[in-house]
Amino acid sequence: MPTLTADRLLRICVAIFKAAGCSDYEAERTSDLLVKANLRGHDSHGVLRVPGYVRSIQKERTKLGVELEIVNETPATALIDGNSGLGQVIASKAMEVAINKAKENGVSVVSVYNCQHIGRMADYAEMALEHDMIGIVMANTGPLGTVYGGMGSKIGTNPICYAIPTNEEAPIIFDFATTVAPIGKVMVKRARGEDLPPDWALDKEGKPTTKTDDIFAPMGGLIGSLLPFGGSVAYKGYGLCLVVDIFGGLLSGAGTGTARADDYVRFAGGNGVFMQVINISNFQDVQTFKSNVDKVIRNVKACTPAPGEYMNMEPGEILVPGDPERRREEKYLREGVFVEDATWGRIVATAKNVGVDIEKI
Amino acid sequence: MPTLTADRLLRICVAIFKAAGCSDYEAERTSDLLVKANLRGHDSHGVLRVPGYVRSIQKERTKLGVELEIVNETPATALIDGNSGLGQVIASKAMEVAINKAKENGVSVVSVYNCQHIGRMADYAEMALEHDMIGIVMANTGPLGTVYGGMGSKIGTNPICYAIPTNEEAPIIFDFATTVAPIGKVMVKRARGEDLPPDWALDKEGKPTTKTDDIFAPMGGLIGSLLPFGGSVAYKGYGLCLVVDIFGGLLSGAGTGTARADDYVRFAGGNGVFMQVINISNFQDVQTFKSNVDKVIRNVKACTPAPGEYMNMEPGEILVPGDPERRREEKYLREGVFVEDATWGRIVATAKNVGVDIEKI
Repeated sequence: MPTLTADRLLRICVAIFKAAGCSDYEAERTSDLLVKANLRGHDSHGVLRVPGYVRSIQKERTKLGVELEIVNETPATALIDGNSGLGQVIASKAMEVAINKAKENGVSVVSVYNCQHIGRMADYAEMALEHDMIGIVMANTGPLGTVYGGMGSKIGTNPICYAIPTNEEAPIIFDFATTVAPIGKVMVKRARGEDLPPDWALDKEGKPTTKTDDIFAPMGGLIGSLLPFGGSVAYKGYGLCLVVDIFGGLLSGAGTGTARADDYVRFAGGNGVFMQVINISNFQDVQTFKSNVDKVIRNVKACTPAPGEYMNMEPGEILVPGDPERRREEKYLREGVFVEDATWGRIVATAKNVGVDIEKI
Repeated sequence: MPTLTADRLLRICVAIFKAAGCSDYEAERTSDLLVKANLRGHDSHGVLRVPGYVRSIQKERTKLGVELEIVNETPATALIDGNSGLGQVIASKAMEVAINKAKENGVSVVSVYNCQHIGRMADYAEMALEHDMIGIVMANTGPLGTVYGGMGSKIGTNPICYAIPTNEEAPIIFDFATTVAPIGKVMVKRARGEDLPPDWALDKEGKPTTKTDDIFAPMGGLIGSLLPFGGSVAYKGYGLCLVVDIFGGLLSGAGTGTARADDYVRFAGGNGVFMQVINISNFQDVQTFKSNVDKVIRNVKACTPAPGEYMNMEPGEILVPGDPERRREEKYLREGVFVEDATWGRIVATAKNVGVDIEKI
């Protein structure tokens, strides 16, 4: 399993995307966010996507050099056609639109269709932070999870992210799948030959399983399904999953990620995206608000830890959303980013395919 | 345990509130929403609140005849001082402000402080439906729950509601606490001498408990705490709980519901409220959008039910958020509303106190 510095990994990705025809900005923005996903510990949204992105460019499903197009707008909203551009590029520009609209109007909602896979929600939500605004991003995915009480892959893993600015504390960056686990984590378990925790997934007969072979067919393809989060009240995770499918997929027109039991499925990979920005200064003095968020963080961190490991965590520590990712990033910047052999092999093959000599980078 | 028709229960509540000094509108709106909470099966937000509301009016903590005041606004946002008015009245009017702003601007956010307990979030979120808009409501509460990994009551139960319009199917109305259970359900368990499910709460030593005596002190007051929802990934419920505390409490200036470990606690009962409305027509053709939501609902309802009761539900049926409440309402409208003896006794005493003869209603 190779370990690379984040810098070198970034240079390799940029070189590959440029060789595949991307502009400097397209190559740099996409690579930057993929490597950042690895640094934050979300390998499923990281450099393992490079071969797929390049293949999509070569097949011209992903279009290069395109701009987003606003097809419907008010001062506070925009419906955006991504023109099949790179997800990271289109989503970054869409978030800029949302931030500018929120500056003028206090709040904005931007909805994006026709863009490819946008990666980690947090990358866009946190763009709002430097403007002293709150960022919210949701995106629907194709069917990977099941509905509350059902079986089979019928709905997306449909993540949500909230980014909230602070003064002295690190910002709250809360990015979560509405299934117990995103599909990427199941793929990592499979790659490592590990069993799943008991509450992650159902097999093709709708029974709980810990075996990744019950989730993926030997030749690839999904045979099991991921469970909505929530434990004994998983209807809450399922409800959120539905909300994201509708906000991400139907407001944008990208299409639902629910499985075809009816006639409406335009969903063809990529994401239907919902973005929202709230301008704090239209509600409260910004410094006061941010200091108060600091205080909320200090309040919850001052709680006495519960004894025992009743909630699947390291006992003795209270965290807020964003802390685990920041710790991983510090560690990986220090120690380098680990890339699994299988992923590295596919990146090397992709580099060769587009004529990039990785050894020289 | 008396059973009353919803109509009579409503007339009784209206008579009590009018005798306590409320205007017709104040008495009717407040009573309407309290009785509706009972009909939908959320007794904790229903008529059991009447004695507390009347006491608060008599002590002049709740002010009658007040109007909400917009203290900061843009075309798409408003910060609203509720002037200590009845929660149901202020929140209803605040949602009207949000709907009107979304009509003009495509999206709106309204934030409310200085209002009393607003009851069920869904009552306001669903006001958006008749305008073909999406409604979102969040409200923070005082500390009743614990943080992920912690113990003691340190944060609110902080509910969220999404209301999404449909054409032929019943609308999606998804109203949920970010703890496994709201405090009202624990109170009902105590009133009935029943044990709690194993994942609802911690005792004062931070250990899971099923005994309501570990939650409430004999003379009242909380000694245990409610757990965030999410099962093995309860950090997700906890993260949402934090988001609602900040959106509801800090954007509005009502104050955080996190327990005092620092100097910032303005929170003095009632709710800090966040309301949002999204005008569908600024994104998609409204009829198409609503038909597509219908199709999503039909898609998920067409899923094969999983065998067994692995998720604490009646097997054999797929529901969407809002279905359970609609079924309870149909049943209670048919069979009458059950009011527990303890609650009824307190309502009778309150009626007597304000000079209302319930027997004549």
